[in-house]
Amino acid sequence: MRLRFTKMHGLGNDFVVLDGVGQAVELTPAQLRYLADRHFGVGCDQILLVEKAGRPDVDFRYRIFNADGGEVQQCGNGARCFVRFVHDKGLTSKREIRVETASGVIVPRLEADGQVTVDMGPPRFEPADIPFVADARAVTYVLDIGQPVELSALSMGNPHAVLETCNVDTAPVAEWGPLIEHHVRFPERVNVGFMQLVHRRAIKLRVFERGSGETLACGTGACAAAVAGMQRGLLEREVEVQTRGGRLTIRWDGEGHSVFMTGPAVTVFQGEIDIP
Amino acid sequence: MRLRFTKMHGLGNDFVVLDGVGQAVELTPAQLRYLADRHFGVGCDQILLVEKAGRPDVDFRYRIFNADGGEVQQCGNGARCFVRFVHDKGLTSKREIRVETASGVIVPRLEADGQVTVDMGPPRFEPADIPFVADARAVTYVLDIGQPVELSALSMGNPHAVLETCNVDTAPVAEWGPLIEHHVRFPERVNVGFMQLVHRRAIKLRVFERGSGETLACGTGACAAAVAGMQRGLLEREVEVQTRGGRLTIRWDGEGHSVFMTGPAVTVFQGEIDIP
Repeated sequence: MRLRFTKMHGLGNDFVVLDGVGQAVELTPAQLRYLADRHFGVGCDQILLVEKAGRPDVDFRYRIFNADGGEVQQCGNGARCFVRFVHDKGLTSKREIRVETASGVIVPRLEADGQVTVDMGPPRFEPADIPFVADARAVTYVLDIGQPVELSALSMGNPHAVLETCNVDTAPVAEWGPLIEHHVRFPERVNVGFMQLVHRRAIKLRVFERGSGETLACGTGACAAAVAGMQRGLLEREVEVQTRGGRLTIRWDGEGHSVFMTGPAVTVFQGEIDIP
Repeated sequence: MRLRFTKMHGLGNDFVVLDGVGQAVELTPAQLRYLADRHFGVGCDQILLVEKAGRPDVDFRYRIFNADGGEVQQCGNGARCFVRFVHDKGLTSKREIRVETASGVIVPRLEADGQVTVDMGPPRFEPADIPFVADARAVTYVLDIGQPVELSALSMGNPHAVLETCNVDTAPVAEWGPLIEHHVRFPERVNVGFMQLVHRRAIKLRVFERGSGETLACGTGACAAAVAGMQRGLLEREVEVQTRGGRLTIRWDGEGHSVFMTGPAVTVFQGEIDIP
């Protein structure tokens, strides 16, 4: 089968994007793994498959597959690339697009400057919802990892711990990351963010991702860090988050509201592959 | 600048191949690094640039650039991909191709079955040529790494140590590899091969590469292991080497002769990229 594809990335989180609107694209898990393989195939973190909407109230459907061939629910970086893709391919001219995903309908928006804003849902702070073992909800907690460390704990759909550091470049990400990730008080493990305050509207961030180690940019990690800084009274309601993969803008209007993430989506190249 | 490219691999050692015959391709180190980047660019181990010959007695010139943008001298897996590329693109119909490289003229050959044979040069055994610290040349040596290990030591242009193991899947590659690589008797460090005999015409091989750790397939490592096995009287003159990236055939007619490596070259996809 010959397939045309587009290679894209959002802050270095990279995707093979397939147009399943004009043509039916059905791939087996083995074919998805082949596409994602960085040495024997095209190479990517995830595969995005854009399809026609299956119902009248949405514009498109899209599906996300991991490099192991399994389908996953949501990906903020992928949603941004999806929006740029349907615009660049001329599949729509709408700026707000209603999209059916495996985890429900989302409504990402293409901004005037070409960046894309995605609703990342509301943060949750109740320890049981994270999950995190604590007697009661608090703004920060002290965790014992051989030494006491102060951190925020919250959920952005997945669990996050956020630490403040005076210098993100020398922060002990590789040393403390695994100790906190596997701490008994995080029964489903945790993503660990190391946040340096630049000023009240900007932070630098490195994230040690659960099961992956440090990554270039973690969308939910950027949301969690900005929200933690706002809860601690250190940050305004809209914050620029500087990661090693690039910059995101996070906006949150307080409890009960969704977190909105704005960031770039980049097309790298077009390709054509014969899939066995 | 818009550039058409082909993505290829030889046993998982992967390349972005550029046709500089029909068009002048001049890339800065920053542009080469961008092409090689696996998240922000196309992604590859090396970039191959095929050019018109600069002299009448050769068919082509080709240059190899590492992912850091620096030019390198030779690469057996790259030479195989080069041959398939010039044939598939219709740039030549010759089966033996004379190619000017940074390290001299090579004459790779396209076989009837589509595989490619490359002259890897003669092995060298004198300890000073490897370099290896030993009183005199021997077929095997005993190295002390906390326990004594028996190994062959030879050069295929780069230094190799070869150990025999009864089961390559459980061999202590990650443990012994660094201990041997950095042993004081290998003053320029060494690539470490773990070889399991299947029968007199086949071995299984894993290689711990100097400075890189274990890789999918090391061309000079396959040559070194086959030659070491022949020198020890365990193998015939032509041997199939089974690596995790795939299979190579190594032929060596004894001292004073070159080692010939035959293996596959695979085209993965065609692409088009705008390079900033």
